[in-house]
Amino acid sequence: MDATTFDALFERVSNWGRWGANDQRGTLNLLDDGRRLEATAAARSGQVVSLAHDLDTVSGPDNGRPALHYMTQQADVGGGEPRVNTDFVGFDFHGKSVTHLDALCHCSFRGRLYNGVGSADSVDSRGGHFGTVDQLRDGVVARGVLIDLPRAAGVGWLEPGTAAGPDDLVAALAAQGTERRPGDVVLVRTGHRRRRAELGAWDPSNLSAGLAPEAMAWLHATDTVVLGSDGDSDARPSGVDGVESPIHALALTAMGMPLIDNLNLEDAAVACSAAGRWDFLFVLAPLRIPGGTGSPVNPLAIL
Amino acid sequence: MDATTFDALFERVSNWGRWGANDQRGTLNLLDDGRRLEATAAARSGQVVSLAHDLDTVSGPDNGRPALHYMTQQADVGGGEPRVNTDFVGFDFHGKSVTHLDALCHCSFRGRLYNGVGSADSVDSRGGHFGTVDQLRDGVVARGVLIDLPRAAGVGWLEPGTAAGPDDLVAALAAQGTERRPGDVVLVRTGHRRRRAELGAWDPSNLSAGLAPEAMAWLHATDTVVLGSDGDSDARPSGVDGVESPIHALALTAMGMPLIDNLNLEDAAVACSAAGRWDFLFVLAPLRIPGGTGSPVNPLAIL
Amino acid sequence: MDATTFDALFERVSNWGRWGANDQRGTLNLLDDGRRLEATAAARSGQVVSLAHDLDTVSGPDNGRPALHYMTQQADVGGGEPRVNTDFVGFDFHGKSVTHLDALCHCSFRGRLYNGVGSADSVDSRGGHFGTVDQLRDGVVARGVLIDLPRAAGVGWLEPGTAAGPDDLVAALAAQGTERRPGDVVLVRTGHRRRRAELGAWDPSNLSAGLAPEAMAWLHATDTVVLGSDGDSDARPSGVDGVESPIHALALTAMGMPLIDNLNLEDAAVACSAAGRWDFLFVLAPLRIPGGTGSPVNPLAIL
Amino acid sequence: MDATTFDALFERVSNWGRWGANDQRGTLNLLDDGRRLEATAAARSGQVVSLAHDLDTVSGPDNGRPALHYMTQQADVGGGEPRVNTDFVGFDFHGKSVTHLDALCHCSFRGRLYNGVGSADSVDSRGGHFGTVDQLRDGVVARGVLIDLPRAAGVGWLEPGTAAGPDDLVAALAAQGTERRPGDVVLVRTGHRRRRAELGAWDPSNLSAGLAPEAMAWLHATDTVVLGSDGDSDARPSGVDGVESPIHALALTAMGMPLIDNLNLEDAAVACSAAGRWDFLFVLAPLRIPGGTGSPVNPLAIL
Repeated sequence: MDATTFDALFERVSNWGRWGANDQRGTLNLLDDGRRLEATAAARSGQVVSLAHDLDTVSGPDNGRPALHYMTQQADVGGGEPRVNTDFVGFDFHGKSVTHLDALCHCSFRGRLYNGVGSADSVDSRGGHFGTVDQLRDGVVARGVLIDLPRAAGVGWLEPGTAAGPDDLVAALAAQGTERRPGDVVLVRTGHRRRRAELGAWDPSNLSAGLAPEAMAWLHATDTVVLGSDGDSDARPSGVDGVESPIHALALTAMGMPLIDNLNLEDAAVACSAAGRWDFLFVLAPLRIPGGTGSPVNPLAIL
Repeated sequence: MDATTFDALFERVSNWGRWGANDQRGTLNLLDDGRRLEATAAARSGQVVSLAHDLDTVSGPDNGRPALHYMTQQADVGGGEPRVNTDFVGFDFHGKSVTHLDALCHCSFRGRLYNGVGSADSVDSRGGHFGTVDQLRDGVVARGVLIDLPRAAGVGWLEPGTAAGPDDLVAALAAQGTERRPGDVVLVRTGHRRRRAELGAWDPSNLSAGLAPEAMAWLHATDTVVLGSDGDSDARPSGVDGVESPIHALALTAMGMPLIDNLNLEDAAVACSAAGRWDFLFVLAPLRIPGGTGSPVNPLAIL
Repeated sequence: MDATTFDALFERVSNWGRWGANDQRGTLNLLDDGRRLEATAAARSGQVVSLAHDLDTVSGPDNGRPALHYMTQQADVGGGEPRVNTDFVGFDFHGKSVTHLDALCHCSFRGRLYNGVGSADSVDSRGGHFGTVDQLRDGVVARGVLIDLPRAAGVGWLEPGTAAGPDDLVAALAAQGTERRPGDVVLVRTGHRRRRAELGAWDPSNLSAGLAPEAMAWLHATDTVVLGSDGDSDARPSGVDGVESPIHALALTAMGMPLIDNLNLEDAAVACSAAGRWDFLFVLAPLRIPGGTGSPVNPLAIL
Repeated sequence: MDATTFDALFERVSNWGRWGANDQRGTLNLLDDGRRLEATAAARSGQVVSLAHDLDTVSGPDNGRPALHYMTQQADVGGGEPRVNTDFVGFDFHGKSVTHLDALCHCSFRGRLYNGVGSADSVDSRGGHFGTVDQLRDGVVARGVLIDLPRAAGVGWLEPGTAAGPDDLVAALAAQGTERRPGDVVLVRTGHRRRRAELGAWDPSNLSAGLAPEAMAWLHATDTVVLGSDGDSDARPSGVDGVESPIHALALTAMGMPLIDNLNLEDAAVACSAAGRWDFLFVLAPLRIPGGTGSPVNPLAIL
């Protein structure tokens, strides 16, 4: 895709100004109490599946800044009763390992964040002041829809480098018999982590399965609230001249739609297949990090 | 309360062996798909309220180990497009500031964890091997009940040092018109944070409002799944000879019931009062920290 | 001191251009192999005294961002022999607690660093590119001179708020019988830590003993290489209109002279007094932190 | 080497009891003011060479727990003048990357530390209480001797797996014309980092050049104070039945001799060769980490 075509797509999916010149919530505006209440009806069995991976403290090709986990005290010290075991955790969470949310201020495209705000004006050395994770303090409670691309394609996983377009998404939904609705959280399974489990880790920075840019037009037209994937939603190489992560630019910057990266969709895929339905009550509760660009998270699918 | 009386209470509320000699999930066993599905019916408006505080990076009397939040990269570096703003967060989260979950392995009473397992045998310098936060990987989805003690007492807050007994809890529920059910998550508001907001921070290690030990017998008898509070549930001074944190010992060690400390119940109190009901769908999703003793969290009340 | 007078003093002590337009080593240029070799002769007994404090992991009025120290492994884990005990340390080291070096890029005055370089052009979110601690990779080996102001004044300490001028420094040197030489590291004792030990910690951000701005002219004229103090060298309130830390601005920005803050000069004061001389071989070896603005340090006085 | 032979060697080089049953300083006892003063005479030109590497924040085969370096503030925030650039550094410093000191409590052999003290009794979850880095608070000031093994062997580096015995050390010293004296710090260059620079990083945990166990008898007989290397002094595979790191066990546990791992000896090798002498004033100043098992360091060779 050449730069001109990408720019036109950026304009087409842009939500700049849609909810006001000062809006910093983006597609979260698509949710209201009514839609949240409706979403609770998507829970029909009460089964819960975590959509996160265990935090990984071991470095590797896709985990260059491993999470920190240290005991800070054990019950071997302290005089009284009871005694405590305590620990420290630390995360440089963006990257290819930690299951995390990207807030809107995470992604600057040509110096701009969502709604046209300047990145340098909105994020300083102490944190962000616009489009931060604070906007998600009350979490995301919505109907979640899993789109299982490898299942539809009858493969174990999409090979790294594959970019799924809108037709692929629509076809997979049809194969599943899953309806899309405005206000959905859409979770796209590429099989990234199944491949990793079977073949070992690799560096997905330059080679990953994800979405084709055109897919964002469909997500925009269908009023998607949040997009998540078992990779980071971007296919690489991106196929777009001069844009390394077009999905990030289109989602976070143009649409104002948060992303969830590095989801664990393996357990959910099994559960959805067993249940014969791929929609559920989705709950995400980012940590309340003032000025944060995102958060490590453990999203839940309540079937 | 003398030691003998406390020991008898410990025995009375103990769940050791109740779900098998090897059980490490404790009161989470009270939840099943059916109860979770029922709990979704407690959401009746779709309003969501965060039950966490903003993470606090500034040290103070109740925050001796402040949370770390550092920018790790801004859009001022990097060659391609888009560019990113990223950050690091770190938490020594137990204590009196961070809203956090205590997993069962957090609390050792006389060398024992829940189910009689030795603390030194179950927690080493790399983390825990029993009763860790891993047991809560699929979160807690349950009916939540807020017990607003200051509201029932007609005061702004319970003075630090106050210990609420079972009669206080029952009376407050009656005043609210709230029914208790097996499988509930019980959240006890003492007004701790309202006092802090109005009078300033203090060190609650030695002076705090919370529950009287006898209240645990009621929580046990009513099959409570998780207990949370705007303090850490313990009143101090504890009033129990030789036991500084009797609620922690009774909940975590005897009952195998996780605790949530330092909740933000101010917004929920307002919302519940406005709605005229104090029950809701409660969702908690701890981070998946292998071997962790707990997790910073942002629990949600979905009214 | 009004702004005009301060600006004139800034010009008077400025070393901008003195060692070339591209220089980023500042007063370190005053040291060469010859002066270092001469400095070794200042060691006359072989007694060594640490000039650092123990790192403090407990927060307090002068330690709002306490150092982190966690065990990462103990000999309770691991299969083979030998087994190891290991730990993690972390420092947000600038501030009033950690004994640390300020590299030149630490201090921006009206947007400029030493030699007129723009701060925003030289320090980005990944670290500094000019005047960083890398310039001190080979340490500072020099003759050190302790100026013990409370000793000369016959007091336990200078009261916070006191600003010592050039006459005070010269008089204290004369009382000690200590000669000043070009290329010296000058360490100024105010008794800050003795006061802290006796009266308890306070927040020195707004109330501290240190140097008067005029003292910098003397340090400049005498070709001082590094200035250190048991406070952070600045007296506060500063007495300079619109400048909160004039010594930092004059030393780091104008002169290009590194500072060492929060030194432990109590042990050295005792040792020097016992030896009857206040000069010694001084060795400082900052950690090699690429792009760092300074380093926690443990400077040594070798008498 | 079989276990019996190793045990006999352990006994032969043991300093347990040599400086008293309660001693925790080990070979540091070999230094006194007189020897330190003599050591200053080893500085004959005033040239200083850092013996540390730059801290490495990028993970790799020999850097699984990369150092943390984050800006905590830049001059873009703050209202007054001057403004500051500040940063955070963190180290899980043991391992194969950071230049660091091993204090005696780092190494437990069959449950015992130096002088026969139990590791579990001396190190708890808060830190060590015996043989910690506190014992080195006044640093190590000594005559340093570089033994350049690749130079003597006429090779670029010793191949990983090579174990240098006492004859190799003595021969290299003779080739250099360097005399050994009691109280020396001995630095052994294997060329580890030159190999790394030319061939790329590898995991030295299982394949490294170092010393043969017998070399420790010579270091013991010659009253060596500290041993350092560009690896971690251990050759691997170790060649000793059931002992993975025999040099660590013999040095730290038996002899009570601190180790310095991951030294940068490349610059020093060039400087010593140019100077035609391989001895110098050596200064090491570990950070004052209470209860620490070691410290990241930047040792200096003052030629």
